[in-house]
Amino acid sequence: MPRSPHVSPRIAGLSSSVFSRLAASIAQIDGERFPLHVGDTWRAPATGAHLSDFTEASHPGMHRYTRPQGHPELLAALAEVRGCDPARTLVTSGATGGLSAVAGTVVDPGDEVVILGPHWPLISGIVRCAHGIAKVVPFFDRLDAALAEHGTADKAVAALLGDAIGPSTVALYINTPNNPTGKVLSAPVLAALAAVARTHNLWLWSDEVYDHYTFAGKHLKVSSFAPERTFSAWSFSKAYGIAGARCGTIEVPDVPGLWDEVRKSAMHSVYQAPTVAQLAGARLLRTGDDWLAESRAAYQQIGWWAADALGLDRPEGGTFLFVDVASALDPALPDDEALTAFLLRCIEQGLILAPGDSYGPTYGRHVRLCFTSAPPDAVRRGVAVLAGLLGR
Amino acid sequence: MPRSPHVSPRIAGLSSSVFSRLAASIAQIDGERFPLHVGDTWRAPATGAHLSDFTEASHPGMHRYTRPQGHPELLAALAEVRGCDPARTLVTSGATGGLSAVAGTVVDPGDEVVILGPHWPLISGIVRCAHGIAKVVPFFDRLDAALAEHGTADKAVAALLGDAIGPSTVALYINTPNNPTGKVLSAPVLAALAAVARTHNLWLWSDEVYDHYTFAGKHLKVSSFAPERTFSAWSFSKAYGIAGARCGTIEVPDVPGLWDEVRKSAMHSVYQAPTVAQLAGARLLRTGDDWLAESRAAYQQIGWWAADALGLDRPEGGTFLFVDVASALDPALPDDEALTAFLLRCIEQGLILAPGDSYGPTYGRHVRLCFTSAPPDAVRRGVAVLAGLLGR
Repeated sequence: MPRSPHVSPRIAGLSSSVFSRLAASIAQIDGERFPLHVGDTWRAPATGAHLSDFTEASHPGMHRYTRPQGHPELLAALAEVRGCDPARTLVTSGATGGLSAVAGTVVDPGDEVVILGPHWPLISGIVRCAHGIAKVVPFFDRLDAALAEHGTADKAVAALLGDAIGPSTVALYINTPNNPTGKVLSAPVLAALAAVARTHNLWLWSDEVYDHYTFAGKHLKVSSFAPERTFSAWSFSKAYGIAGARCGTIEVPDVPGLWDEVRKSAMHSVYQAPTVAQLAGARLLRTGDDWLAESRAAYQQIGWWAADALGLDRPEGGTFLFVDVASALDPALPDDEALTAFLLRCIEQGLILAPGDSYGPTYGRHVRLCFTSAPPDAVRRGVAVLAGLLGR
Repeated sequence: MPRSPHVSPRIAGLSSSVFSRLAASIAQIDGERFPLHVGDTWRAPATGAHLSDFTEASHPGMHRYTRPQGHPELLAALAEVRGCDPARTLVTSGATGGLSAVAGTVVDPGDEVVILGPHWPLISGIVRCAHGIAKVVPFFDRLDAALAEHGTADKAVAALLGDAIGPSTVALYINTPNNPTGKVLSAPVLAALAAVARTHNLWLWSDEVYDHYTFAGKHLKVSSFAPERTFSAWSFSKAYGIAGARCGTIEVPDVPGLWDEVRKSAMHSVYQAPTVAQLAGARLLRTGDDWLAESRAAYQQIGWWAADALGLDRPEGGTFLFVDVASALDPALPDDEALTAFLLRCIEQGLILAPGDSYGPTYGRHVRLCFTSAPPDAVRRGVAVLAGLLGR
């Protein structure tokens, strides 16, 4: 009972940003700075769909509330362009707002959510904020080996999941294309995961915010494998480079009344997604194809260049490289101190990276690099810093 | 355990919007429409601080992420203009986002939050979404009578609170100026409430989104009575007429580490408030005084006119009238059906009002009217509809 001055242990147990520890060093960078720790884009949004293109003259009342479930113009565009059913779609404050609303709807205290790791950092905190238990299963970084060893996707998935799914598990979180590994899950793997969910009556939380950024293989919607149980999260942030605008979507499975439950959860969290972001979203869906194609080509080019420069597998999608830096860590130090020391060595040369333990408890010897958060030339110089430190 | 296809009973127990029941009738309004059910403004925001005034040319990177705790420009303006301590202030997605983050920080399952009623509708759902129990105490509509009966604010507050505060209570929610009653709490009443909170080690959640709209008496910050335990919620939505932009603030009491806990809670809900709304907020704080003064004068004029027309006390603040319509309800029907029938009679004449039971379980014979959500002329015609139905 967190009476003043106490807070809920669940919140206190979430780790604070590692960057508060590094902030002083980052502030001292005096040469060029390579901020490759944030998942963002260097590109300005598509011409004609900047937020400044929406005025009271063209959109009277655009500073006022719209409907909590979403602006009618955006829901119409989502139906037309992305095939979303307006009766099962909610517009949310980014995919973060959407997944948080889903967690609020289907997690009760003590329930477990199995998260395929390494994972988007916020998802474990979202589960814990909803009073659930986040159970991270190393998956994306071991999938190829498991497939080679076990022969079929069903067996590989079963081996990787092990005994993670138990009587308290309510949901399974899947993110493809994956942040941070760049892996794109294939049809057999998704079918195997859907079968597991069906066997255990689990919800599937599918995070598909990088769907447009698939460079090898093909992005497949998880909901096409298990439509009856899949919440699909998507966002304009990554797709169209408007992360600061806060607009995304949740598609809710066709369970009677379920859409309204998620709507209530979202409404009590932030009431609605920003009106202007929704207007921009509608226009981006209808006019942003060229921008998407240019971005996809540019992201793939720099992402593959960076992977080659670091001697890594080329990312199949997304905007990140997840780099095992164990060989460059001081073996005399515990992992967390060794990684912090390594991050500080990067910062001394202007390069800011994200520490791997944000992506799952077993990734304390990794770093994540976003290859789109600075212009390609800057990314090349930043990657060269990392290659140098790794002796590659 | 809400496995597919089940959801958390806590969410399922929240009532859906009453407007879904009324939607068909509202859609059939064919004459003038008076949408006085929403808390919003008819005024466009201050010239020079429309969202369209912020461009990539003047604010490079404005479509990207900013810091989750708030844009540095806005935090600087909040410090300068509103006296907020940047080290204890968080920028949130409206006051809704802020109070939701506070609830996520200090409510554990089964904890109770005492809410002074009638109350802003979303707060009870926010408490319940955080797994807490919302305990509504009729207060604002009974305060004058209690003060007259008991002589002192301490005794009146004690009488009104009764035995509502128990061993599971963690917080007390206060909203002044009050939505929906228009009451503004005085210094003695706030001091009495602060004393109660201190006695029981409760957090105070102070919702002050209507602080600029005080027409009688003086708005007082609850934190000036109990700085050590008061979370202050505020928003640009109501103050500056940009509800659709989703930007507000939480000031956190000076408890070591507490700011970071609330930051974590907010970050896992929506990551950050929209960047462009924060830029607009900073400019509004620095240049919006004339607009505020004009709005305050206009709101007071129409609000007091409406109260006079309906034979009610003039609102001391806020943008609402809370009207007891019991005399016009069909006594043969249960309260909820009688109120729905009354709302439908209003809708037949174009007038949309909010049902009282959203403001607390004992207000099923009230309606709420927002006197700023349409231009004054339209509000006058809408109020005339209500006066006619009430025979006033």
